[in-house]
Amino acid sequence: MNSNCIFCKIITGEIPSDKVYEDDSVMAFLDIKPVSRGHVLVIPKNHSADLLSADNETLKDLMPKVKQISQAVMKAVNAQGINVSTNNGAAAGQIIFHLHFHLIPRYSKDGLPPWPHHEVELKTRTELAEKIKEKFTPDTITSLL
Amino acid sequence: MNSNCIFCKIITGEIPSDKVYEDDSVMAFLDIKPVSRGHVLVIPKNHSADLLSADNETLKDLMPKVKQISQAVMKAVNAQGINVSTNNGAAAGQIIFHLHFHLIPRYSKDGLPPWPHHEVELKTRTELAEKIKEKFTPDTITSLL
Repeated sequence: MNSNCIFCKIITGEIPSDKVYEDDSVMAFLDIKPVSRGHVLVIPKNHSADLLSADNETLKDLMPKVKQISQAVMKAVNAQGINVSTNNGAAAGQIIFHLHFHLIPRYSKDGLPPWPHHEVELKTRTELAEKIKEKFTPDTITSLL
Repeated sequence: MNSNCIFCKIITGEIPSDKVYEDDSVMAFLDIKPVSRGHVLVIPKNHSADLLSADNETLKDLMPKVKQISQAVMKAVNAQGINVSTNNGAAAGQIIFHLHFHLIPRYSKDGLPPWPHHEVELKTRTELAEKIKEKFTPDTITSLL
């Protein structure tokens, strides 16, 4: 619980929301400015700013629920697909700094634009892959296994 | 293992990739058509078409690794943020039907456009929230808890 956090206030009920699911550790409600009909946010009740700072137990509890809430949302709005995403940091478009997954129902030819992709040469890719590999410290690897 | 799946062939090494991380159950490699520098895909080795059809144990194993691989990628490319997302279904932009999370490093003023949001009236939201709640069957609720 973070007393300055809008989503923590939604959890306590201090701020109202269009709730679609709630249990002891997770809550889901409609985004008030949806990208598409049925755009839902799923949040853990345990406050963390984003995915990067969430503890592993929170994530293990959260993701099977994200999956099942996505299934319910798709049925309710007869969606043909769904984007499940979380933004980390203001540079990534994050506005509320409490971990939340966006569930965005999709339809064929709904007109939402894909992001631009670029071609990258093999040599450039190989160099970059090496650079990323270097950032896995022995501690990181151990905790990943 | 699905013999028609490109990502399963990347796992076996039959198709080459710019690998950045691998353990017994998870692999991460550069997207060959990145949205931004350091765009990485993280996949479970256990084949499922998407998040919606993945088993819970696969997701519980995967997400802490998605988090830690995101941290390594951000360090390697000095990103200020990162989008973590998975597309379910062709209508949602999915091209390879093997569950994968996109890690897309972000920078302030990188020019990637946000998706358009819309305002929705409270009454419409309330009705929709009710419709979604109805799709949680007693079985769903039990499995979520």
